Amino acid sequence: MKRVYNFSAGPSCLPLEVLEKAGSEMVSYGDAGMSVMEMSHRSSYFDDILQAAKSLYRELMNVPDNYEILFLQGGASTQFAMVPLNLYSKTNKADFMITGSWAKKAYQESARYGEAKVIASSQDKNFSYIPKVDPKDFTPDADFFHICVNNTIYGSRFTPENIPDTGNVPLVGDMSSNILSEVYDVSKFGLIYAGAQKNMGPAGVTTVIIRKDLLGHAKDFTPTMLDYKIHADNDSCYNTPPCYSIYICKLVFEWVKANGGVAGMEAVNKEKAQKLYDFIDNSKLYKGTVVPEDRSLMNVPFITGSDELDALFVKESKKAGMENLKGHRSVGGMRASIYNAMPMAGIDTLIDFMQKFEKENA
Amino acid sequence: MKRVYNFSAGPSCLPLEVLEKAGSEMVSYGDAGMSVMEMSHRSSYFDDILQAAKSLYRELMNVPDNYEILFLQGGASTQFAMVPLNLYSKTNKADFMITGSWAKKAYQESARYGEAKVIASSQDKNFSYIPKVDPKDFTPDADFFHICVNNTIYGSRFTPENIPDTGNVPLVGDMSSNILSEVYDVSKFGLIYAGAQKNMGPAGVTTVIIRKDLLGHAKDFTPTMLDYKIHADNDSCYNTPPCYSIYICKLVFEWVKANGGVAGMEAVNKEKAQKLYDFIDNSKLYKGTVVPEDRSLMNVPFITGSDELDALFVKESKKAGMENLKGHRSVGGMRASIYNAMPMAGIDTLIDFMQKFEKENA
Ligand SMILES: Cc1ncc(COP(=O)(O)O)c(C=O)c1O
Ligand SMILES: Cc1ncc(COP(=O)(O)O)c(C=O)c1O
Ligand SMILES: [Mg+2]
Ligand SMILES: [Mg+2]
Ligand SMILES: [Mg+2]
Ligand SMILES: [Mg+2]
Repeated sequence: MKRVYNFSAGPSCLPLEVLEKAGSEMVSYGDAGMSVMEMSHRSSYFDDILQAAKSLYRELMNVPDNYEILFLQGGASTQFAMVPLNLYSKTNKADFMITGSWAKKAYQESARYGEAKVIASSQDKNFSYIPKVDPKDFTPDADFFHICVNNTIYGSRFTPENIPDTGNVPLVGDMSSNILSEVYDVSKFGLIYAGAQKNMGPAGVTTVIIRKDLLGHAKDFTPTMLDYKIHADNDSCYNTPPCYSIYICKLVFEWVKANGGVAGMEAVNKEKAQKLYDFIDNSKLYKGTVVPEDRSLMNVPFITGSDELDALFVKESKKAGMENLKGHRSVGGMRASIYNAMPMAGIDTLIDFMQKFEKENA
Repeated sequence: MKRVYNFSAGPSCLPLEVLEKAGSEMVSYGDAGMSVMEMSHRSSYFDDILQAAKSLYRELMNVPDNYEILFLQGGASTQFAMVPLNLYSKTNKADFMITGSWAKKAYQESARYGEAKVIASSQDKNFSYIPKVDPKDFTPDADFFHICVNNTIYGSRFTPENIPDTGNVPLVGDMSSNILSEVYDVSKFGLIYAGAQKNMGPAGVTTVIIRKDLLGHAKDFTPTMLDYKIHADNDSCYNTPPCYSIYICKLVFEWVKANGGVAGMEAVNKEKAQKLYDFIDNSKLYKGTVVPEDRSLMNVPFITGSDELDALFVKESKKAGMENLKGHRSVGGMRASIYNAMPMAGIDTLIDFMQKFEKENA
């Protein structure tokens, strides 16, 4: 079966072993005589899958006991609403750092329900860096403080060391595009959410890690399905969960664990990213768009400076078996999304191609 | 590969051909070199899948041009909130018929946002019938009128002939458990919603058919992701849709079409249900729990009158290769959910077993 190197920003490549396993179990899961898609969410078969997914995720992310893990529908975009609807509770104030399009969308949705304040923004330089902030500028009585930990479109990230210290104010992190890629200390956050479709599984399930004291404060008019407490009280089975997507996440979690856990992913991800950034920095043709210290390990945007060459690059790379290297229109050029499931061979193939392309088009 | 007869109420059995096809395409979809799970939702591959799913669904359901078709996340339970948040627009009044647990949940969520009125209920007889109603009792200026077309738990349904005539008031139908099972006239509805996990695909995608004039009236505080207009304006791709679940729906739609469309399903479903109900009515041991004229074609509850025998039935039927025949606690006894994908052989196997069990336990 032909496989391409898929550099899509999401949905994106999954480990081949996971797909092969899922394919082999499609018609009958073990001795169940049915597909995971056909299982009642109240069956012991599915409950085993859900509990395994949850405990693997807890283990991989080193989630403390005072946090709940939820598997929800609606994508990270629904979290943009659930966060303010559930976390605005005392002062209705919240702080935001605007480091990209998704950070901004989260801010805009929160601004509809309370006093959302922009603490810092890097929009002045097309989101090419993470702004330095001083905790003295934070709202001391804010109900939460929101960051987008990895900026998928612009290719920047808050490193684990660079997470803002918000003191008693719950820090909320959108980790949709770097979940399980690098070790972050969950206890620094009040809430972490992530759509599955980059590092965990298919689109259609979103994980939420939420500190228990943040449950139970939803606004009066919060739709039942957008109340975290409802889902926590019902172990993500208040209604029918996206069972099959959760099953794939479980397979991915097993794969991550078998490959050294998040620390193992981090080591390889750093090697992959370093190789690619080094090549870009040393080349004459290609330029990275993000300041070195804030660069993402997952999304690597680069440009040639010529729209024509960029377009040719995308076209030719496709012919060479690499898909989805076109950059997002907000940055232009190219973007290589190199999530956990992208093997080193994919990076090597890309760099070889870049080299050849540079020679041919110098 | 061993396969059981799976009588689960949902998620529930899918056509074997669909599962086999999905399994064979898991690692590479056609010549794409990637799984459908790995495809960017902005790729032409996925767009082709989405457009095919949409147009097949439109064709199968005979959806008029003045209706939009949406593929959303959140399950039917999220529709319980989206309906009032989007449809309460002029008078903030709505009418409800309470014919089961899901109808009641829909009513309760709507009651949080407006003046929800119960026009009729069959709770007095444990939802064993569909109440007769007189349009003179309907609220003439209601913003909508909600029914649950098939009551999954109690096994009753509004037949296509028995849909209330709400005149100019938009009729909203929850068809989660009988979508594509029988021909209903979409033009009699303002909005039809259905979770996929019974007759369409895996849990995690919900279809909405909405008359276009009902778009664009969401309440001020409606979360962006719960605004139908946002999804209609973006062809279900405002954010990342549940791509893989939509792909499975497409395969199921193709299967329905290849098997005579909804009319073809209806003919077989009537035959299957008739056979089972006839057997129940003619037996001394088993009793149906719903009045004959309102019986569901999809969910067939029956009891023996003895809790002990019921428990034994469930246990022994499992040994005989039939899964999930235990009734819902609200009715007790047994429930055979016989959705589109349940073959006639499954009905025959069940009836044979029932016969044998009756003989052995008379
Ligand atoms: C960082 C980040 N946040 C949020 C989203 C939106 O996710 P969804 O499409 O699941 O709503 C994305 C999607 O790419 C993302 O990368
Ligand atoms: C008729 C009906 N409505 C609503 C629901 C709730 O659907 P979900 O679990 O997808 O929210 C169900 C689930 O079984 C149902 O049968
Ligand atoms: Mg971004
Ligand atoms: Mg350079
Ligand atoms: Mg019911
Ligand atoms: Mg009888």
